[in-house]
Amino acid sequence: MDKIALQNVHNRIKPYIHKTPVLTSRLLNNICGANVFFKCENFQKMGAFKIRGATNAILNLTEAQKSKGVVTHSSGNFAQALSLAAKKIGVKAYIVMPKNVPQVKKDAVKTYKGIIIECESNIIAREEEAKHIQIEKGAAFIHPSNNDDVIHGQGTAAIELLEDYPSLDYIFTPVGGGGLLAGTILVAQFFSENCKVIAGEPKETDDAYRSLHSGNIETNESSNTIADGLRTHLGDRNFPIIKKYVDSIIRVQEDEIVDAMKLIWERMKIIVEPSSAVAFAAVLKHKEALKNRNIGVIISGGNVDLSNLPF
Amino acid sequence: MDKIALQNVHNRIKPYIHKTPVLTSRLLNNICGANVFFKCENFQKMGAFKIRGATNAILNLTEAQKSKGVVTHSSGNFAQALSLAAKKIGVKAYIVMPKNVPQVKKDAVKTYKGIIIECESNIIAREEEAKHIQIEKGAAFIHPSNNDDVIHGQGTAAIELLEDYPSLDYIFTPVGGGGLLAGTILVAQFFSENCKVIAGEPKETDDAYRSLHSGNIETNESSNTIADGLRTHLGDRNFPIIKKYVDSIIRVQEDEIVDAMKLIWERMKIIVEPSSAVAFAAVLKHKEALKNRNIGVIISGGNVDLSNLPF
Repeated sequence: MDKIALQNVHNRIKPYIHKTPVLTSRLLNNICGANVFFKCENFQKMGAFKIRGATNAILNLTEAQKSKGVVTHSSGNFAQALSLAAKKIGVKAYIVMPKNVPQVKKDAVKTYKGIIIECESNIIAREEEAKHIQIEKGAAFIHPSNNDDVIHGQGTAAIELLEDYPSLDYIFTPVGGGGLLAGTILVAQFFSENCKVIAGEPKETDDAYRSLHSGNIETNESSNTIADGLRTHLGDRNFPIIKKYVDSIIRVQEDEIVDAMKLIWERMKIIVEPSSAVAFAAVLKHKEALKNRNIGVIISGGNVDLSNLPF
Repeated sequence: MDKIALQNVHNRIKPYIHKTPVLTSRLLNNICGANVFFKCENFQKMGAFKIRGATNAILNLTEAQKSKGVVTHSSGNFAQALSLAAKKIGVKAYIVMPKNVPQVKKDAVKTYKGIIIECESNIIAREEEAKHIQIEKGAAFIHPSNNDDVIHGQGTAAIELLEDYPSLDYIFTPVGGGGLLAGTILVAQFFSENCKVIAGEPKETDDAYRSLHSGNIETNESSNTIADGLRTHLGDRNFPIIKKYVDSIIRVQEDEIVDAMKLIWERMKIIVEPSSAVAFAAVLKHKEALKNRNIGVIISGGNVDLSNLPF
């Protein structure tokens, strides 16, 4: 991967995505003692950055592959992202989802014409059902985060951010499956002088933090975080990138996530999901070390259930 | 009042306000069957358009008046707006507020260095206390909506909107005290070819609708609306403008306000207060008559209590 290849990824997906705005807040800058630039992927199509990676992955398939469709397992934003990207490109998307997923998430996938296949609510059942669809339909499997094309697509948010603000000292992202973090790291390597990438992670599901320290991909025993997009673990495609280049992973408590989310809602008047707030919570936690720096924060998405808020 | 005078108002207050963005949503356009342009005053300083009128009113005082400060009675956005505008200009602001106002509203005023004077919770006590401050301190009284300078200042949001989108067929605003509506009407007269202004009003507090039909300023017996910024009635400075030029006032039910608010939150990922949603609820209610039109909606503000949401 090099700068030109990443630029090509961005150019390829541009017609399918929004260039999202970068917002700032004087008040939040004062609180942080730094200049914070929020890359607002909550305003992205389907409400999250995931459309970037999903689009890139589908566009990179051969015509023969496209004719047979794509399959993934996800109950969150990637399910919607792959469905919408597939619809735009004219490809079928099979989405394997646990039976017990809330109806609202199923409805969102159906809005984008994704074909839902229900399975038991455990990772083995999800993977088996996805394999079954691969064999039966010939569909191409696209993992939500552990796929090179997905990783490169997710990185394009940081390309736009660095194009607008080339002198960032840091970019903060949340880390869950690792796609956004690895993509952002690759972009920072090639599109900045010396911009470091730091991840925020819920303490409750700190598999990435532990992986970094053990050198192996660790998993979570708990899934007890409000940041429901960050309950998954890293994979063999993104972990080597993260292990080699991430500056650090900062763990944040649940109340710090909720406080950061509330601060953004109240002061910036934008709706961000808890996973997005994790990255900003890490900035707040680390602010003594960030004085007067220029900091990008990837606001990963804005899909929240308004009837179930933590305030 | 003419175009040049209104342009001068805008130029005068520009250094003190944000030029707020205009957002659009393909999905909401599809729902409305029209092109809707949301003027996002929720991103304005202190979170509402009211800073525009407050700033203009203070800047128009003589130096002798400024040295003695300003006074208003308000428990809502105008209390914060006058406090912040006064602070920026270097003037004292006395804010008369009912005793029983939630602490969070008092704190917001204190953040902007407004001096709070508490009174009993009725309109006579508020007005008497404000008069008392006028006499005792020599402070200039600035009414939240029934003041020419305030009306002209509030109109500047529509100047910006029409500068960006000159071919609007309609602008929708909420109507409470009438300052925003009257200011928007004046601007539409002078800055557009044929843009009509329509107001949305809660059915529960439909004094403006009734005033338009009776020809006199009517008041409300109920204050039972979620749109807490719209419980007040018109005044003798703004009613003549509204009576003469408003296209119509559309009344909306409480559930229509909440549905419109939820739609904006969920689909646009921005936080708007119930009073803002009233204008959009009126668009939704009237949509058959608005097919394919270009419609501006003034999103009046984004100050909501997150611990007390209607979803």
